[in-house]
Amino acid sequence: MTDTPASPMPDRDRASTPQASTVDPQARLVEAQARLVDVRGLARAVEEFATERDWTQFHTPKNLAMALTGELGELVEIFQWMSPEQSSRAGSDPETAQALRDELADVLIYLVRLAEVLGVDLDDAVRAKLARNALKYPADKVRGSHRKYDKL
Amino acid sequence: MTDTPASPMPDRDRASTPQASTVDPQARLVEAQARLVDVRGLARAVEEFATERDWTQFHTPKNLAMALTGELGELVEIFQWMSPEQSSRAGSDPETAQALRDELADVLIYLVRLAEVLGVDLDDAVRAKLARNALKYPADKVRGSHRKYDKL
Amino acid sequence: MTDTPASPMPDRDRASTPQASTVDPQARLVEAQARLVDVRGLARAVEEFATERDWTQFHTPKNLAMALTGELGELVEIFQWMSPEQSSRAGSDPETAQALRDELADVLIYLVRLAEVLGVDLDDAVRAKLARNALKYPADKVRGSHRKYDKL
Amino acid sequence: MTDTPASPMPDRDRASTPQASTVDPQARLVEAQARLVDVRGLARAVEEFATERDWTQFHTPKNLAMALTGELGELVEIFQWMSPEQSSRAGSDPETAQALRDELADVLIYLVRLAEVLGVDLDDAVRAKLARNALKYPADKVRGSHRKYDKL
Repeated sequence: MTDTPASPMPDRDRASTPQASTVDPQARLVEAQARLVDVRGLARAVEEFATERDWTQFHTPKNLAMALTGELGELVEIFQWMSPEQSSRAGSDPETAQALRDELADVLIYLVRLAEVLGVDLDDAVRAKLARNALKYPADKVRGSHRKYDKL
Repeated sequence: MTDTPASPMPDRDRASTPQASTVDPQARLVEAQARLVDVRGLARAVEEFATERDWTQFHTPKNLAMALTGELGELVEIFQWMSPEQSSRAGSDPETAQALRDELADVLIYLVRLAEVLGVDLDDAVRAKLARNALKYPADKVRGSHRKYDKL
Repeated sequence: MTDTPASPMPDRDRASTPQASTVDPQARLVEAQARLVDVRGLARAVEEFATERDWTQFHTPKNLAMALTGELGELVEIFQWMSPEQSSRAGSDPETAQALRDELADVLIYLVRLAEVLGVDLDDAVRAKLARNALKYPADKVRGSHRKYDKL
Repeated sequence: MTDTPASPMPDRDRASTPQASTVDPQARLVEAQARLVDVRGLARAVEEFATERDWTQFHTPKNLAMALTGELGELVEIFQWMSPEQSSRAGSDPETAQALRDELADVLIYLVRLAEVLGVDLDDAVRAKLARNALKYPADKVRGSHRKYDKL
């Protein structure tokens, strides 16, 4: 008989390990709040989509990086003749807004697929990168300037 | 006597409205499970990062689309001389694996930021696109072939 | 009595046939004037460069298209945070001017190499495209507007 | 009395200076042979095309770099699902060959236009880059390997 649990704060502890999320709804909740990026649903959806069409054979990282390039080209094309100010209002035209949603989606789909076939956890990758960026670009030194960090 | 209904499963009901997520942890959990993409944490982190550095002035859609292009170029460069098979094993070299994580992160960061300044909900956008792709590429007709949908 | 042939400017006549260029230096000169694009010298230089390094094995169209993407990314990066007006003055900063020359050169080198391995004559390709563009975008209809030709 | 002529091969000497080309057809010929890249005809054609349509206002370097990105995306898309070997035979399909000519032309047109508005001489730029590449990648050290020069 004891009032000391074998494992204090078990949910929170387990929440930091991926396995926990499949076991414990509460842990999953905590994990979801902590994550910057959760694209596991999309990764699964694209995997199924490709498998049903026997397209996984085409989904090498090299090919996917090219598909990503093609889709980004379509996104960039929308903005090419706009001034920066016009680009900020691009979403107010319904036809352009639809095109933007479509192209952003296409880029994200291939990006998530590429990370998936490479086995890269985008949440981890993004956290590490943001942490490094914070060191590279100290707010006090770069405020209002976009010069490269090695020229500060 | 009360004008507050007993409402069965109130959390689930509310879960479908975005506001609920800020109020009710359980609703947030349900919502998180249903989403294909949740990048709200990253969107907030990048917004803060930019604000602290007074960089939001540079973050027009036009500029961000170009920044995305620059980062994608670095990602593509990793694979340029690899065979497709080599690209599939790219992550087994620690140095290359790190470069891949970094470049994937950079692309995702700018993509999420671009969607944010355009006011595009990536989860919605991706769902709509996947639904349309399923119609454009019926599994029975395209199996094993990557020809464009208008040439089937 | 004269050694001047009756036919004035006979070389010009022959200059319109490609064969002439290999026979007659004067015809070659005229041809050079008529061409919109002459990158044969660069194509040869890059071929030699690649052969000396046993790099032709890497120069498939797929790989070269990726290399081109990587180099374009570096070019785009130079302009990403500039206003359009700043981009017009970019060459006035010596360091930026040098970067621009370098990146433009890199893009052109891979573009010419790609055309070469595909057996595409860029002068022909450009002429055909300009002729088609002139039909697609009649000056009277598109003046001052950059909308896509199918929306005129 | 001297065996050193005052000016040996005056035409050739002058041929290396740009001014000579406007004066002396023979010098121009020599210059044409020496050039690696001559895109002056295309630069003029595009300038006229843009002027007739009052499009020069849109042709800032920033905008042109984006237009170049869009066109490159279309070129890359052609190769995205091909194996490298298939990409080497891409020109044997007439429809694909036509698409390749079109997209290569589009990329070259915007590249030449971008260099023109920036005032960059592509022949100079390419020569300088090739000279530097020859130093960075000594044939003896890099033969058959595509590792970055700083990893040799």
